[in-house]
Amino acid sequence: MSKLKKKVVIIGAGFGGLQVIKSLANHRDYDIVVVDKKNHHLFQPLLYQVATAVLSPADIAIPTRSITTKYKNVKVLFGEVSDINFEKKEIVFQNNTESYDYLILATGAKTGYFGNTQWQNKTLGLKNLKDALSIRRQILLSFEQAELIGDYEKSKSLMHYVIIGGGPTGVELAGSIAELSHNIIRKDFRNIDSGMTKVTLIEAGPRLLNAFSESSSQFTKSKLENRGVEVLTNSPVLDITDTGVVLKDRVIESKTIIWAAGVEGSDLAKKLPLNKDKSNRVFVDEHCRSIDYPEVFVIGDAANFSKGLSKPLPGVSPVAMQQGRYVAKYIQNHDKNRDMPPFQYFDKGNMATIGRTDAVAEFGIFKLKGIFGWLGWLFVHLVYQVGFKNKVSTLLSWVWSYLTFRAGSRLIQEEVPDLSIRP
Amino acid sequence: MSKLKKKVVIIGAGFGGLQVIKSLANHRDYDIVVVDKKNHHLFQPLLYQVATAVLSPADIAIPTRSITTKYKNVKVLFGEVSDINFEKKEIVFQNNTESYDYLILATGAKTGYFGNTQWQNKTLGLKNLKDALSIRRQILLSFEQAELIGDYEKSKSLMHYVIIGGGPTGVELAGSIAELSHNIIRKDFRNIDSGMTKVTLIEAGPRLLNAFSESSSQFTKSKLENRGVEVLTNSPVLDITDTGVVLKDRVIESKTIIWAAGVEGSDLAKKLPLNKDKSNRVFVDEHCRSIDYPEVFVIGDAANFSKGLSKPLPGVSPVAMQQGRYVAKYIQNHDKNRDMPPFQYFDKGNMATIGRTDAVAEFGIFKLKGIFGWLGWLFVHLVYQVGFKNKVSTLLSWVWSYLTFRAGSRLIQEEVPDLSIRP
Repeated sequence: MSKLKKKVVIIGAGFGGLQVIKSLANHRDYDIVVVDKKNHHLFQPLLYQVATAVLSPADIAIPTRSITTKYKNVKVLFGEVSDINFEKKEIVFQNNTESYDYLILATGAKTGYFGNTQWQNKTLGLKNLKDALSIRRQILLSFEQAELIGDYEKSKSLMHYVIIGGGPTGVELAGSIAELSHNIIRKDFRNIDSGMTKVTLIEAGPRLLNAFSESSSQFTKSKLENRGVEVLTNSPVLDITDTGVVLKDRVIESKTIIWAAGVEGSDLAKKLPLNKDKSNRVFVDEHCRSIDYPEVFVIGDAANFSKGLSKPLPGVSPVAMQQGRYVAKYIQNHDKNRDMPPFQYFDKGNMATIGRTDAVAEFGIFKLKGIFGWLGWLFVHLVYQVGFKNKVSTLLSWVWSYLTFRAGSRLIQEEVPDLSIRP
Repeated sequence: MSKLKKKVVIIGAGFGGLQVIKSLANHRDYDIVVVDKKNHHLFQPLLYQVATAVLSPADIAIPTRSITTKYKNVKVLFGEVSDINFEKKEIVFQNNTESYDYLILATGAKTGYFGNTQWQNKTLGLKNLKDALSIRRQILLSFEQAELIGDYEKSKSLMHYVIIGGGPTGVELAGSIAELSHNIIRKDFRNIDSGMTKVTLIEAGPRLLNAFSESSSQFTKSKLENRGVEVLTNSPVLDITDTGVVLKDRVIESKTIIWAAGVEGSDLAKKLPLNKDKSNRVFVDEHCRSIDYPEVFVIGDAANFSKGLSKPLPGVSPVAMQQGRYVAKYIQNHDKNRDMPPFQYFDKGNMATIGRTDAVAEFGIFKLKGIFGWLGWLFVHLVYQVGFKNKVSTLLSWVWSYLTFRAGSRLIQEEVPDLSIRP
């Protein structure tokens, strides 16, 4: 290793981390070490489709190692970072240490409960493949149990799915679960009518998709209701018990409660001695640097970037990707003693899919609804998938589901059925 | 339900069970109940490719419910049969009972250790999706650990894979693991050379693939050796310890020992009061009926069919499929008081793949080796896959792997790496 080379350590190979890697790939001035506790980059926007049995894990995940095969200056380490010594500039993981000149924290977010940690064991989150497979298993198992019981009254709480949180993830899950139960699997059961399944989407605020325009929110609500989803707005959750969800005016009994209402910084961010907001996001300056250590950058969902803004940048993949590219450029300029203008987010817009042939998409003043929004959504999500094979296999699954009205991945991987379902 | 209808209960939706279902589907005289402890039919011949990260679980598995959607007289129950009351003609499962007029035990086989049950926790078997994902996880993790250690001498036992059993499964696994480590992932690591991985295939008998001809065995051995597999024949395993495998003349240190040497009847078969051989296979008569109860049929790997034969029929899918179709026909004839000739197995031949462009195939006096055997193998395994989507996605994965020399499913699904590997 040349003495002039600088060492860049990146924690996390999500949307942000991957852009840093790609921007510095095969750069002769930098050695890059990527540490991740997953062995794959995950295309999170389609995670809900793994949860609802449309896609397989391998359709939306690609081994980080295979992304970096041709990047000779990139080393991938699979493991969990347990600590960071900011004074000595080294990270600690799996009983090893790795020093750095620049550190990039791209550790993403985890499901957050606004302090109600007791709800964690009563709900299912959706942040990684394991979560998605747990939701899939729970949904499929609850239908199986209802089929065994064979009595609608006794299976009501098994056949009632509650999703908390009316953001894109909540909307997409609600639409997708309604489609699965009301259409896709309906002819597969003999004792129950899966068409009687209830799906309830609960939002604390006054409308769904609050990052979108009023009209898109309204469109989404009415389309979901047409698809048999009960939408409850202005309905903050007061409590979650072993049998259901407590709202101010009712109790919803359900065996399957999915939490899509909030996220917070990762466990690693939580324990680091850095300045953070109450969601454990690290405060950064206008160059995406932590305000404590200028050689430590924090990007994507892990960061609170609010310099010059009325509110922090949202936790969406375009922010992370643009910050990743910015930081890579910043480091190179910095090493040449060149100044960089502050990071500026270019907001390309928002998209959320409601179901078959329906989505909302907003690009600045352009708004697409219904089938055009849906086609736009399909296109963007195919283009941004990493890896040619994943694009093809995702497309294949979509075409197949679209033509046949079936879901391709309704597998419960375990053989011996531990029929217990959460909670 | 018409009073004249007979009720056929099938336990197990593998190759055999599925043929019974299909043969009696939408038959007005029969109601069919299928009970399975998996929610899917599994195409076992390709299971080793899930274990070696070429295919995804959804490529080779298809929900039993979705196979039977259009069979109105078929009810699928997901659960484990805990007991059978042969006198009352009813099965017990998940605290329910289900009566039958005819019962078909198609419960398959599980990994068997010839009485050495203490080896079970020291080795990995390969009979279901969970097994395959465990092997995949173990192989991928051992490379990750070796990369972290970064020292060949210290990682030797991590980078040594031992497969016990020189039948088709052992041969296919050995060839596939050698390909994975010596070629596919070789450029993905920086600290280790995965090309130095050792793969050892151990066979107790004098040759590999003893159901094949001598010349096919010899061809397989030399092709495997060309691919860097160490083949040890005449090498019965004396013991398996926490650190490796003990043979008569050496001890092989390995962290990954795969057991492909034997199978035995399922746990259910084991506890039933039926006449069984020492591998827990149920003895059947010339009509595939258990010798204890004429209304109870046993087919496929669960059965010992040796009537008029020098040795029992082998545990391969064509036997199970032919027996499934035979039994369905037998039941219909029996109900019309017609006699049926004894079951006769039509042996279509044997196939095993060694690796890229190499396989052996024998159809009676026709023998194919090398690339023609391989193409034949590909063709047969695509044709016999159940479900159009699975055929297409498998083909896609194969074409992709073949053209790119990559494996498409190198995922470890768990996020937080419990880096402990078995044993």
